[in-house]
Amino acid sequence: MAEDLYLGIKDLPIVSPHGHCDPGWFATDAPFPNPAELLVVPDHYVFRMLYSQGVPLSELGVGEEGRKKDPRAVFRTFAEHWHLFLGTPSRIWMNHVLNETFGVSEDLSSCTADLIYDEISGKLAQPEFRPRALFDRFGIEVLATTDSALDDLAEHQIVRTSGWGGRVVPTFRPDGVLDGADPEFVQNLDKLAELTGCDLGSYDGYLNALRMRRAHFIQLGCTATDHGIERVQTEWLGDADALYQRLRRREGTEQDARRFYGHMLIEMAQMSVDDGLTMQIHAGSKRNTNHAVMREFGRDKGADIPIAMDWVTGLEALLNRVGNTADLRVILFTLDEGSYARELAPMAGHWPCLRIGPPWWFHDSPAGIARYFDQVVETAGYYNLAGFNDDTRAFLSIPARHDLWRRGVALHLVEQVARGYFGRDSAEHLARLLAVDLAKQAYGLQS
Amino acid sequence: MAEDLYLGIKDLPIVSPHGHCDPGWFATDAPFPNPAELLVVPDHYVFRMLYSQGVPLSELGVGEEGRKKDPRAVFRTFAEHWHLFLGTPSRIWMNHVLNETFGVSEDLSSCTADLIYDEISGKLAQPEFRPRALFDRFGIEVLATTDSALDDLAEHQIVRTSGWGGRVVPTFRPDGVLDGADPEFVQNLDKLAELTGCDLGSYDGYLNALRMRRAHFIQLGCTATDHGIERVQTEWLGDADALYQRLRRREGTEQDARRFYGHMLIEMAQMSVDDGLTMQIHAGSKRNTNHAVMREFGRDKGADIPIAMDWVTGLEALLNRVGNTADLRVILFTLDEGSYARELAPMAGHWPCLRIGPPWWFHDSPAGIARYFDQVVETAGYYNLAGFNDDTRAFLSIPARHDLWRRGVALHLVEQVARGYFGRDSAEHLARLLAVDLAKQAYGLQS
Amino acid sequence: MAEDLYLGIKDLPIVSPHGHCDPGWFATDAPFPNPAELLVVPDHYVFRMLYSQGVPLSELGVGEEGRKKDPRAVFRTFAEHWHLFLGTPSRIWMNHVLNETFGVSEDLSSCTADLIYDEISGKLAQPEFRPRALFDRFGIEVLATTDSALDDLAEHQIVRTSGWGGRVVPTFRPDGVLDGADPEFVQNLDKLAELTGCDLGSYDGYLNALRMRRAHFIQLGCTATDHGIERVQTEWLGDADALYQRLRRREGTEQDARRFYGHMLIEMAQMSVDDGLTMQIHAGSKRNTNHAVMREFGRDKGADIPIAMDWVTGLEALLNRVGNTADLRVILFTLDEGSYARELAPMAGHWPCLRIGPPWWFHDSPAGIARYFDQVVETAGYYNLAGFNDDTRAFLSIPARHDLWRRGVALHLVEQVARGYFGRDSAEHLARLLAVDLAKQAYGLQS
Repeated sequence: MAEDLYLGIKDLPIVSPHGHCDPGWFATDAPFPNPAELLVVPDHYVFRMLYSQGVPLSELGVGEEGRKKDPRAVFRTFAEHWHLFLGTPSRIWMNHVLNETFGVSEDLSSCTADLIYDEISGKLAQPEFRPRALFDRFGIEVLATTDSALDDLAEHQIVRTSGWGGRVVPTFRPDGVLDGADPEFVQNLDKLAELTGCDLGSYDGYLNALRMRRAHFIQLGCTATDHGIERVQTEWLGDADALYQRLRRREGTEQDARRFYGHMLIEMAQMSVDDGLTMQIHAGSKRNTNHAVMREFGRDKGADIPIAMDWVTGLEALLNRVGNTADLRVILFTLDEGSYARELAPMAGHWPCLRIGPPWWFHDSPAGIARYFDQVVETAGYYNLAGFNDDTRAFLSIPARHDLWRRGVALHLVEQVARGYFGRDSAEHLARLLAVDLAKQAYGLQS
Repeated sequence: MAEDLYLGIKDLPIVSPHGHCDPGWFATDAPFPNPAELLVVPDHYVFRMLYSQGVPLSELGVGEEGRKKDPRAVFRTFAEHWHLFLGTPSRIWMNHVLNETFGVSEDLSSCTADLIYDEISGKLAQPEFRPRALFDRFGIEVLATTDSALDDLAEHQIVRTSGWGGRVVPTFRPDGVLDGADPEFVQNLDKLAELTGCDLGSYDGYLNALRMRRAHFIQLGCTATDHGIERVQTEWLGDADALYQRLRRREGTEQDARRFYGHMLIEMAQMSVDDGLTMQIHAGSKRNTNHAVMREFGRDKGADIPIAMDWVTGLEALLNRVGNTADLRVILFTLDEGSYARELAPMAGHWPCLRIGPPWWFHDSPAGIARYFDQVVETAGYYNLAGFNDDTRAFLSIPARHDLWRRGVALHLVEQVARGYFGRDSAEHLARLLAVDLAKQAYGLQS
Repeated sequence: MAEDLYLGIKDLPIVSPHGHCDPGWFATDAPFPNPAELLVVPDHYVFRMLYSQGVPLSELGVGEEGRKKDPRAVFRTFAEHWHLFLGTPSRIWMNHVLNETFGVSEDLSSCTADLIYDEISGKLAQPEFRPRALFDRFGIEVLATTDSALDDLAEHQIVRTSGWGGRVVPTFRPDGVLDGADPEFVQNLDKLAELTGCDLGSYDGYLNALRMRRAHFIQLGCTATDHGIERVQTEWLGDADALYQRLRRREGTEQDARRFYGHMLIEMAQMSVDDGLTMQIHAGSKRNTNHAVMREFGRDKGADIPIAMDWVTGLEALLNRVGNTADLRVILFTLDEGSYARELAPMAGHWPCLRIGPPWWFHDSPAGIARYFDQVVETAGYYNLAGFNDDTRAFLSIPARHDLWRRGVALHLVEQVARGYFGRDSAEHLARLLAVDLAKQAYGLQS
């Protein structure tokens, strides 16, 4: 019956409300480069694992040295270490990409590396493997990218007016203009002033500028904002203006910056009450913990490590200001699974605005999905979940990730039916909800 | 074989050593009111879920506005949102109540709401559905309520002298007279003085008053105390008297109050060594996190959220003062499942006084029960567990909750047998222990 | 197929790279004493459980009083309480020892206690039950002990020159000479000076002395160091010398001691880069939490309780100094399972030096092993694990513990195959890796 339930949702359209694809791919529709630059170099799930076993990042095409490497050699290095991925979701996703998308029938290994490299290269030159064609073939109904609040969204504009029917929408990510500890904070404010024409000398002008950017994003189809923060901390400040001025003059302390950001999260939630944008909070990743790798290769290089969370204290101020608003949507993502049953499920099972995001990052995996359902559903139910999102910059892996989720959904629901908690009809209904509809609802993507 | 094991314990008497039923029900034996006031309005598991999906609490009969609602309309609103409970234990309990207790054969839905409402209303008017009759029919051997240290226990007195054979016993809950941060602390002390005739001007008089109240509870069948605290913190104070005086004069800080309470937990444990009352500690719930709901509707409205626990540090002082006393019983309840295997099981597997309470609140659910056994038994064994308690104010749901536990016990034990850890005989013995006997032992309810 | 997989690794040699056996057993090869002193008195897993149920430690042969007890009476007390171990790994291990090693066919109980006591006593008098013979019969390829940095390793010396072929190697455990809060710290430094001839008046002399001790251990076959610490805290000090002098003069605070130890962990890691010793960090156990038991019976008496961990912050300084060294091995052991998926797996899946140790202590159990694989593999893969180690001072239980692990490995891998994540060939390969080879690699024990 798991098979039946899965087959019932396997081919439903893909709704991808949060991820990191490059809108430029769909604006230009240029062919993807070689297999290494497509599948290895940009995928931090892949190169972190090889790095952990002693393969230098430069051998994997990463960084300045890496960019000079022959992509075929990079792909070969990857293939030689393919055994490292046994038991990981990366292996499942990659096999899906190779087999389903590229039609490769050989198993990946050092022996087959060149063969497979050539096979994929050949495919990438064909029109059916251009970004828009793949988007259509994957059955993607809508794809959200993640975009800086300072982005002019020109590529999104191009996609919309291109005549191509694919729905690609931006997501408003304002970290750079909210985080006073960002070294570029002041320059970012200058850009914000320039883009909006607002006077950022006053806190009110700053808020107006943010509202204008949100409105601009909405015009281009945006339905959500996103925040990436280490620790959740919110506080409604009486003196937000004073703190704003201090940070603008680069005179704020780290604690000032943290408090200001925590205040701005509440301002953002209040703007969401007004303009209807769903608010996403991705919290609990300590970024760039490997300083040498950060210096040489930059951010997002596999050294972001989760930390323990305290959502209850962290969101107290925000929730007590706007949390009872029934048409606000705030979606929470955690990397600390200990907070699923302890905090997120009880919170989402009470506050009208809250929804729990799907298993995130390391936990977007078969066992991670099973733990999520096990620990979340009994207290939050299904209707306080936000469905699935793939959260990936690896465009090719999108169908694989949704497929893994849908299999996990089917396995979970079948067990519930087997235990007698509900019948087959309910399971079929919930399967569709979890595969597509809850995500649409949570992100306001129905229309 | 799970079925067999379950059938072997299914109809054993119900021992309910901790819960929040109203002793007045059994004192007056008045009929329960309508279905809404019986099943919806008082059940925070139920209305929190509807509130989380945008249904105002007043529509659910909660609060001053709510009390004016037609109970039939409240029940209808509940039935319309019945799908929200898919996958939750509330649904299992409610179905058990509807089907087993009221003999309702239709599935709950907006279509059947009125029909079922009438069916239940009809039953509630019958003598077989009065509190005492249900108590007997449910096979309850003993039921403990939870009572303020300042309660005169008049209703318990009535039950005992009523000639009815049901055993209903009080539990001594002294939070109001131990917590110096309680706004009513000083008035509560005045009441305590009045009730006991003790001079509460001195710390010794205060201790004597507490001892007298405990003795009074014991006279009415009480075998246990209960403490509900946010964070566990204990400390043996040299200057308890000084702190007591400061708090009595309303001059204490919040920290004074916390330290004093932490000291009094040890005093309570010492009194338990003397008078034999089992001590319960329910810790780790941050209460009333939704200030607007608290202001308008009061406490226990679904906004109590668990927090991370540190039992090791928190109980260090208490355990090092009385923990090696082999005939003291201290039962610990956690909402932070991370502390099951990390702290509670190792602690209960060492300290003679400790027992681990059953899965509490959000975790009193099929998956919660499975996680409990999975994470607790290997380190603590079975004999350091305190069996089951339903901890409910929803009297009707008591059989359903014990039934869910007994099914969970059977499923767990059958897996243990299947893995070869012990034989069928042991499983049958353990099933009975977990269903009834461990609870009796832990709470001294054998006689 | 689980059975097949298990049979394929069941009889592989035992590699035991971390544990607490006494090297003297193999130096003298004297017969083990009576069953009580062999199986009950030294096993804190066993006596803590009986103590938790009210059996005084002295009845179990522990402590000064205990040593006067008749060992037969001790064994009888143990047998009478055998039911307490239902569901625990201790029961599985003990049954394995009784049935497999001693050929006992009766079930342990108060009725059979004397019979079994005599049966084991008889066996212990036979040459086949001497330490070396058992070592050979158990198929132990290599066994590491844990030895103070101040140990002269005379017993190891004797084993090596005895002509017996068994490989027993020491492990360098320097806590006593790194921990300035240890009351014996200064005396320990004096002994260190004496042993090495170094001038410990200077920090450089101190480092040299440590290097010399490591070299001495290496000469006797040592391949690893070990650190047992409560909280992980590392920091590279500019003024290590000043702090060293302060602690030497007994003028340091507790915080000085903690900071100094945290600095020395980094020094140790740097020495490992130089001399190739694998570094083990066992962190997160709060030791001797029962003060009365500590005073009367000493350490390791069942009152060590795990605490919550923050590996990310705690190792930041160490990893950023040496963590990118691909041929360094640092193995992390946790008792806080919440850190498996949240911290350890992501960290080991990035840092080249890190490996995750097997489930430790309370979690070395069937369900503990299942949780470990469930939470660790998807993010860290299999190749970032350190295989198994039994970590025991109960020599007789070593085969039982490896057997339990191997069964757990087979069960895990069979589920992975059933879910379609990899094929039978991969499973067989991984089974051997997890049973033997990963441990050899992680500890440099190949040769």
